[in-house]
Amino acid sequence: MIYLDNAATTYPKPEMVYVAMDKCMREYGANPGRAGHQLALEAGRAIYKTRELICKLFNIDNPMQIIFTCNATDSLNLALKGILKQGDHIITTSMEHNSMIRPIVTLEKLGIEYTVIQCDKKGMIDTQDIEKAIKENTKMIATTHASNVAGTLMPIEEIGEIAEKNNIIYLVDAAQTAGVYNIDVEKMNIDLLAAPGHKGLLGPQGTGFLYIREGLDLQQMKEGGTGSKSELLTQPEIIPDRYESGTPNTPGIVGLGAGIEFILKEGIEKIRKHEEELTAYMISELQKIDNVRIYGPLDAKKQAAVISINIEDEDSSEISYILDKVFHIAVRSGLHCAPMAHKTMGTFEQGTVRFSLGYFNTKEDVEKAVEALKKICDELKNR
Amino acid sequence: MIYLDNAATTYPKPEMVYVAMDKCMREYGANPGRAGHQLALEAGRAIYKTRELICKLFNIDNPMQIIFTCNATDSLNLALKGILKQGDHIITTSMEHNSMIRPIVTLEKLGIEYTVIQCDKKGMIDTQDIEKAIKENTKMIATTHASNVAGTLMPIEEIGEIAEKNNIIYLVDAAQTAGVYNIDVEKMNIDLLAAPGHKGLLGPQGTGFLYIREGLDLQQMKEGGTGSKSELLTQPEIIPDRYESGTPNTPGIVGLGAGIEFILKEGIEKIRKHEEELTAYMISELQKIDNVRIYGPLDAKKQAAVISINIEDEDSSEISYILDKVFHIAVRSGLHCAPMAHKTMGTFEQGTVRFSLGYFNTKEDVEKAVEALKKICDELKNR
Repeated sequence: MIYLDNAATTYPKPEMVYVAMDKCMREYGANPGRAGHQLALEAGRAIYKTRELICKLFNIDNPMQIIFTCNATDSLNLALKGILKQGDHIITTSMEHNSMIRPIVTLEKLGIEYTVIQCDKKGMIDTQDIEKAIKENTKMIATTHASNVAGTLMPIEEIGEIAEKNNIIYLVDAAQTAGVYNIDVEKMNIDLLAAPGHKGLLGPQGTGFLYIREGLDLQQMKEGGTGSKSELLTQPEIIPDRYESGTPNTPGIVGLGAGIEFILKEGIEKIRKHEEELTAYMISELQKIDNVRIYGPLDAKKQAAVISINIEDEDSSEISYILDKVFHIAVRSGLHCAPMAHKTMGTFEQGTVRFSLGYFNTKEDVEKAVEALKKICDELKNR
Repeated sequence: MIYLDNAATTYPKPEMVYVAMDKCMREYGANPGRAGHQLALEAGRAIYKTRELICKLFNIDNPMQIIFTCNATDSLNLALKGILKQGDHIITTSMEHNSMIRPIVTLEKLGIEYTVIQCDKKGMIDTQDIEKAIKENTKMIATTHASNVAGTLMPIEEIGEIAEKNNIIYLVDAAQTAGVYNIDVEKMNIDLLAAPGHKGLLGPQGTGFLYIREGLDLQQMKEGGTGSKSELLTQPEIIPDRYESGTPNTPGIVGLGAGIEFILKEGIEKIRKHEEELTAYMISELQKIDNVRIYGPLDAKKQAAVISINIEDEDSSEISYILDKVFHIAVRSGLHCAPMAHKTMGTFEQGTVRFSLGYFNTKEDVEKAVEALKKICDELKNR
């Protein structure tokens, strides 16, 4: 099986992730932050270590500003619903995933306005359009860092500047970039950074985080036991406890820590370079196949390692089915939970076949995928 | 290390839980329900299998009525906030954990009334008090199945009858009982059942579920990608998708499935019998120590395997510290995130030292704990 569905979840993970999780489960599977005994303290320290690793990767000062969540969707919901109140306005883009746009559309019912900036067919945004959309009540700008459909990278540093200049909160969805692209919350004026643990950060599913800039006051979505201020019937104000009710996913967070340690050890530049090379190679090879349409920037410097294609007007799910069944290549077809992005690209009806590459993919994997597509095209011609 | 903190999280887990999780991570770590390729389908099947196992354990008909959450707190927040609207009234008890009472107190700000039924010093409830508290706008009765502080079991079948008779929704928090006590949602008229995966169900931290009776319409707390109805910018109505946005914790859910398989293999009666025996033995031994105060029913048939004690007026955290440092016995002291329960028991100032036993504890563990307490008492006398 050649796994080219890394935009959904990276697979495999580094060996050290498996080992760290198993060790946590077997050797210190206690409840962190609740009791004072050795095992509980060890679990608590392991979780704190992951907070520190996240800080290192994204240039965050205070580990207590990292909120662990169960996935990026959870992080985005907390960020959006925690900040936006009746009468507020939010600006977002037409390349967003449903994890961003669905909560925003839901918030509309509570009297929150939104503006969707239309990107071009490659998914590229004109930041002037963002500036033009700013109104007096604009509270937040929320954009993805890279499209999960076309890979298109957003100019987050430039958008961060616009937000900063206009005193607007900037929320970045780093689902497709965390662990591969440089993200510096200070330099880029990012106030809220949402990321899953199980994609580029190489941790397990069931993990994610939201970074909250110090001083930002979000309404929590849940209340419950926090192991702190147990005497209160109201949620404590202490961060991260306020946003982390209930027993955390200790083995998952430990696995996420191991994934980030792997990234720091390998070097994020090396990881990105490898993915860029594979992406550039795949694009150039695909361009040689007559009846393949490729979407997005067609430039490995302007897109994450995500390549969406179609073979003429063929059903995208039919192609992915053949890739799986005949060639044992795992990809994802359809709308990828991002209907607006597909409308932007003109692929809303057909969907696309998405190849998403990871650090553990090789040039040979790409060759085989291209070879398979060639064979499918030939087959279709002779039909 | 003798681990007697199973009410916080059970430890260790059955070997098959570690093995299943590691296998999932290594062999089919794909994203379930998003793509159609083999690995994604295998992950999806594994998750479905856990739904079925939960159904088997709690006599639930339809596996699609199981909502996976990240812990019981998450489940309770969804249950409470999903159902209760302005003008509604909810009845709960004075033995609840903060995961129940904190969301309820928060809901008060939205115009939801609540009544807390006062239990006696042992944590026992008089169900007539519940009946008396019912008003025209009573929408829900919400109780724990067993106190996490004193172990006191609530008569949930009886309460379920009262709820059913009055056409009121019944929510049960099974954090301390799922996997050990018989819970039959049909027979007991339970409309919403919240449970963590990492306690009696022997799964990993980061898992939990909420069972929702078919036909009950809850407002979801989060929106996002569901892998279904991707074309919509609004949350799909399909269950469980509506309540399960974002990538699920596949390895965690697989581990939870393995934990339940272990329970079904051993037999829940055998597990409960073992825990009851240990509890009865520990209570009887503790009663022989002069200056130990034991709280709760003092009857293994009326309480889960949770025993709270104090040594005269000694600081509970001091005792647990000595148990850990000198005797390598892991317990939890303080308020256990349940201040109302401690007020009910008269231990709000002092807290208690909580011993919570699990299926993997032995009589020898209990003996050592009792021995340690005796030594501490002697030490204190000679002070």
